[in-house]
Amino acid sequence: MGYFRDCIEQMEGYTPGFQPKAADVVKLNTNENPYPPSPRVLEVLRRFPPERLRRYPEPLGDTFRAAASSVLGISPENILCTNGGDELLAVCTRAFCDARRPMAYPQPTYSLYPVLAKIQGCPAVEIPREGDWLGELACINAPLTIVCNPNAPTSDFVPVEQLDRLASALSGVLLIDEAYADFAPDNALRLVAKHDNVIVLRSFSKGYSLAGLRFGFGVAQPAMIEGLIKVKDSYNVDAVAAAAAAAITDQPYFRANVERIVQERTRLTESLRLLGFEVPDSQTNFVLARCLNGSAEGIYKALVEKNIYVRYFPLPGLYDKLRITVGTPEQNKILVTALREILSQKGKPV
Amino acid sequence: MGYFRDCIEQMEGYTPGFQPKAADVVKLNTNENPYPPSPRVLEVLRRFPPERLRRYPEPLGDTFRAAASSVLGISPENILCTNGGDELLAVCTRAFCDARRPMAYPQPTYSLYPVLAKIQGCPAVEIPREGDWLGELACINAPLTIVCNPNAPTSDFVPVEQLDRLASALSGVLLIDEAYADFAPDNALRLVAKHDNVIVLRSFSKGYSLAGLRFGFGVAQPAMIEGLIKVKDSYNVDAVAAAAAAAITDQPYFRANVERIVQERTRLTESLRLLGFEVPDSQTNFVLARCLNGSAEGIYKALVEKNIYVRYFPLPGLYDKLRITVGTPEQNKILVTALREILSQKGKPV
Repeated sequence: MGYFRDCIEQMEGYTPGFQPKAADVVKLNTNENPYPPSPRVLEVLRRFPPERLRRYPEPLGDTFRAAASSVLGISPENILCTNGGDELLAVCTRAFCDARRPMAYPQPTYSLYPVLAKIQGCPAVEIPREGDWLGELACINAPLTIVCNPNAPTSDFVPVEQLDRLASALSGVLLIDEAYADFAPDNALRLVAKHDNVIVLRSFSKGYSLAGLRFGFGVAQPAMIEGLIKVKDSYNVDAVAAAAAAAITDQPYFRANVERIVQERTRLTESLRLLGFEVPDSQTNFVLARCLNGSAEGIYKALVEKNIYVRYFPLPGLYDKLRITVGTPEQNKILVTALREILSQKGKPV
Repeated sequence: MGYFRDCIEQMEGYTPGFQPKAADVVKLNTNENPYPPSPRVLEVLRRFPPERLRRYPEPLGDTFRAAASSVLGISPENILCTNGGDELLAVCTRAFCDARRPMAYPQPTYSLYPVLAKIQGCPAVEIPREGDWLGELACINAPLTIVCNPNAPTSDFVPVEQLDRLASALSGVLLIDEAYADFAPDNALRLVAKHDNVIVLRSFSKGYSLAGLRFGFGVAQPAMIEGLIKVKDSYNVDAVAAAAAAAITDQPYFRANVERIVQERTRLTESLRLLGFEVPDSQTNFVLARCLNGSAEGIYKALVEKNIYVRYFPLPGLYDKLRITVGTPEQNKILVTALREILSQKGKPV
C-alpha cells in the first residue's frame, strides 16, 4: 500500500489458531475449555435488559471489579478489565514501549509478544528459555519484561518466588501473563501488594470457558491501573462481557471444571507417552508433545485429514512438537486412537 | 509512577461522558439512541448457544461481514469489524502515525483524536474548522487525516464531494468518521471504490441503539483492510457482538427509529431556539446549543441538579455551548421545561 508505517508494512500479522466451522471436528488447537461456561452466564444473556444494550457500558467494568475483588481478596482499584487478555498485552506495549524502550521475554513463549513489539515499533529482546534465563531478563532490565507463567506453549511453571526476585531486580515493569494460571499449582497475585511494578494478567478464555466473550483483566497497584486506563479505549469492555461477573462468582462450577481438566491432563499425558511422545508434565490445559517417531508437521497434517485439529508452530524449538489442548475424555480418546493409527502406518511419510 | 513512556505520564486520559447509575435520570449526554435495539438482537442473546461462548469468536467477524456487505452493497473484504468505532480510530492511529508521521484534523471535533495522538506519541496538527479548512488539511497532507462527518460536537455536515476532493489531494489516508452518518442526508461509502486511501468508520452505538455492545466497522479497499487486520487484536470482536449482524439486517426497524429521531430533532431545535439558544441545524442525533442568556456551565450544573444530563465541554470554542442528545419526546419535554425554569430564575447565577 505505502500508506502504513514501515514497521506495519514489513511485518506479518499474528496467525490465530484455525477456527474450523464444521461442528463435527475434534478441536484441540486453541486451548479452549471443552466444557460449557457456568449456567449463570447463559442466564445473564437470556435476561439481558435492552436498556443495557442501548446505553454505553461501564467504562471500568465496575460490576465485574466488585465481583472479582471479593472472590480474589483484592480491591476493585487493583483491577483493569480488558477485551480479552490480548488487549491488556497491547495496552501494556503501548504504555511502556517505544523505539527507545524495548520489551524483553523468553523464547519460546506466546507468539503474540513479538507481533505487538513490531506494531509498536519497539525492540524485542528475546532470551532463550534455558539456563538462568530469569537472571538474564533481570540483567537486560527492559522497561517491559513479559513472563508467561505457566508458559505457552511449553506448559511448565516457574515458582512464584523466582518471579518475586525478578520483580525486585527490575526497574521496569514485570507483566506476568497468567492466562493459564487456573490450571497451575500457584499464582503470582500476592506479588502485586509487594511490587508496584508487577502486573498480573488473567483470562476468562480458558478456565471459565468464555473465549467467545473476550474478557480478561489485569491486577496491579492502583497507580499502575490508573496509568493503563489512560491507554485503553474508554469503553473497551461491552455490557455483555459483564457476564464474566456471573462466571467468577460461580466458583464451585469453575473449580469442578478445572479439576476435570487437570485429571484428564494426566490421563492424556500418559497415553501420549505410551505412544512414544516425549511429554513434560503440564501445568496448563494443554500438553506439548515432542514427536520422536515421525515429523510433527506430518502428524499434524494426518490429524487434520481425520478432522482432528491440534497446533503445530513452525518456529525454532517447536518444529518437532505438537501443542494439544486437553479435551473431554471422549475427544482425547479419539485423538489417541488416531495417533496410534497414524504412527502404525509405517512406510507412510508422517 | 515513572514506569510509563513520557507521553503517557504527561497526558490526561480521555474523559467519557458521565454514566449515571440511577434509572430515573434524563440522560442526554452521550448521544445514545433513546429507543431499544431491534428485537432480533435480543432474540440472538436469548438463544445464544453456550458452544459459541466457549469457543473463540470469528477473528474477522465473517457473519457480520456477510450481512453488512449485502445490506450496504459492498464486498465482505471491504469490511473490518471493530470493538466500537473507537477501536478503529486507535488501530488507524497505530497503523499510520508515529513521532515522524503526524495526524491532522479540524477543531472542534471528537475529543478522542488528540488523546490517541498523545498515546501514540505522534504530532497532532489541528486546523480551526473555519474558512477553507478542508483546503488547509490538503496542504498539510498528513499521513493520517481525520474528518468527522457529520461532525461532533458541531452537528453539521460537509458535502461528500468536498471529501472526494480532499481524498484526491492527499497522499496519506483520509479517515472519515461517520459515527453519526445514520442521521445525515448523505454518506461517503461511495468514495471507497474510488480512493484507495479512504477509510469510512461506522458505529452501531447511535443509529442501531447498541452502544452497550461495542460494535463498529471500517470500510475501505481490501489492501487497506488487510493492513489494518495486522494491527487489530486477533479476536477483537466477541461472539455476542455478532448480534450486530441481526441488527443490520433489520433495516425497517432501523429506518423507523432514525426517522423518529430526525423528526424529534427538528422539534427540539425549534424549542431551544424559542428559549433563546442559538442552534444550528443538526445532521446528527444531537444538537449543539449556544447559550446566549447565561453561562453554559451554569446551565449544565443546574440541569444536573434536576437529574438531567447533557454534555458540557470546557474546551476552546465550546465554553458557551451545550451538546444535547435528541431523546424521546417525553425526555425532550422534560429538558425544555427545566431549561425554561432555569432561565427564568433571574438573579441566580446561571
